Amino acid sequence: MKLLRYGPKGQEKPGLLDNDGKIRDLSAVITDVAGAVLSDELLAQVQALDPAGLPVVPGEPRLGPCVGSVGKFIGIGLNYADHAAETGAAIPKEPVVFNKWVTCISGCNDEIQIPPGSTKTDWEVELGVVIGQTAKRVSEAEALDYVAGYCVVNDVSEREYQIERGPTWDKGKGFDSFGPIGPWLVTKDEVPDPQNLQLWLEIDGVRRQSGTTKTMVFSVATLVSYLSRIMTLNRGDVIATGTPPGVGMGMKPPVYLRPGQVVRLGVERLGEQRQVTVQA
Amino acid sequence: MKLLRYGPKGQEKPGLLDNDGKIRDLSAVITDVAGAVLSDELLAQVQALDPAGLPVVPGEPRLGPCVGSVGKFIGIGLNYADHAAETGAAIPKEPVVFNKWVTCISGCNDEIQIPPGSTKTDWEVELGVVIGQTAKRVSEAEALDYVAGYCVVNDVSEREYQIERGPTWDKGKGFDSFGPIGPWLVTKDEVPDPQNLQLWLEIDGVRRQSGTTKTMVFSVATLVSYLSRIMTLNRGDVIATGTPPGVGMGMKPPVYLRPGQVVRLGVERLGEQRQVTVQA
Repeated sequence: MKLLRYGPKGQEKPGLLDNDGKIRDLSAVITDVAGAVLSDELLAQVQALDPAGLPVVPGEPRLGPCVGSVGKFIGIGLNYADHAAETGAAIPKEPVVFNKWVTCISGCNDEIQIPPGSTKTDWEVELGVVIGQTAKRVSEAEALDYVAGYCVVNDVSEREYQIERGPTWDKGKGFDSFGPIGPWLVTKDEVPDPQNLQLWLEIDGVRRQSGTTKTMVFSVATLVSYLSRIMTLNRGDVIATGTPPGVGMGMKPPVYLRPGQVVRLGVERLGEQRQVTVQA
Repeated sequence: MKLLRYGPKGQEKPGLLDNDGKIRDLSAVITDVAGAVLSDELLAQVQALDPAGLPVVPGEPRLGPCVGSVGKFIGIGLNYADHAAETGAAIPKEPVVFNKWVTCISGCNDEIQIPPGSTKTDWEVELGVVIGQTAKRVSEAEALDYVAGYCVVNDVSEREYQIERGPTWDKGKGFDSFGPIGPWLVTKDEVPDPQNLQLWLEIDGVRRQSGTTKTMVFSVATLVSYLSRIMTLNRGDVIATGTPPGVGMGMKPPVYLRPGQVVRLGVERLGEQRQVTVQA
């Protein structure tokens, strides 16, 4: 099942994508794609509905972030061996954890706002993991039971603020608009193996990133278990699991986003995003 | 005005502390000390009430976090010149920004849970700043207009996870229970100068930290303005503005928290906290 949120910013309504690619309105069924709705039980209730019985949403509404009321937006760094190599970093011995401020979360096709003065705004296609059940110190073996589903994330990153302006990464990871998530939250039944998904990203039609979640250093199950030992994971928390090679910082010389460019990215089974860059 | 939240975890009700030190129930007036209630307009409405007309809350209820639904819990590192020195770090040229996972937020007198295996859990008394109005790229001159009030924060920190286990600080700053805030949110009218407040912390009755916000490297106004340029600050966001000297990591040799200790801390005008440490 593909759940989504459509409508103007801050006023998104819940919906689902039917098999014909039409958006069906879920407003009469759930209040939002968020919180308790992400439990196995409530997702099963929604899944049991016949989409044909739900109103078709006319036109082509904006797609908002595919999950609402995200409490924590957790980033994992250097989680693909080949990406670590391109940035000159060693392969981490345990997951690298950082934060994306939740106010950076945006719709999959919303503009990317390049911060004033920034010359190092970069792209990162990632597999996003959405938590469906409160997880505290869960084992790797059971970790995926706590996942509601998956989504595409563009972990937009300002490298000067991330790396050159202080000992933590958090300044550069969470500018407004730096967290497009979606187009949809794909429930886990449609993703039999999260470690076998292709990822790609293009800038102005030129392929920049290509990878597969097969080469993750730490699997989704390992990450969920690990994170659940350093914080309680709640329903609707989103984990951005790291990016494969091909980021702008890794090019020789580095290449970064300029206003007016088109970023397209996708993850197998999870849909595509398209963002235009603008000067904030 | 001193606003607070009382009752069992997750079921806190809004209240205020009257001039006799009694808790008065605000449930009939506001839904929570959170979000829109933190605007100047709504705070003024609450302030206009006669506390004597509000029900007295009997007994001594638990005090919850003084602000609910915190969206972002933002930490500032090395913001006292003398604390930077004790940790061996240089005085930062611009604010050091890190994240405290919002799930770490706890009541002012709740237990501090020492994580399994941790031997480096440390204390940090801090001035907390609560945002009252959406702030995006605001100037220093107007920054304090966006503040609803202030509170005591214990920025509990696990130094091994913060410093030795990866390039960001976020792992060590946000374990569950690492963010006691309160006892109350003191509205800004009661804090004429946030740069002239004494701070102190004791472990088992022994004074460990003493300081004044006079010696902050970056003032509250500077921090709010700076942060508002790298993210949108929303109502209910909390900023922990850094700690004065006297943390365990700075002692020679370092001394950290063990289970069964009592941590007491306070900030002038903002009240006191008291936590017992337990092994999680």
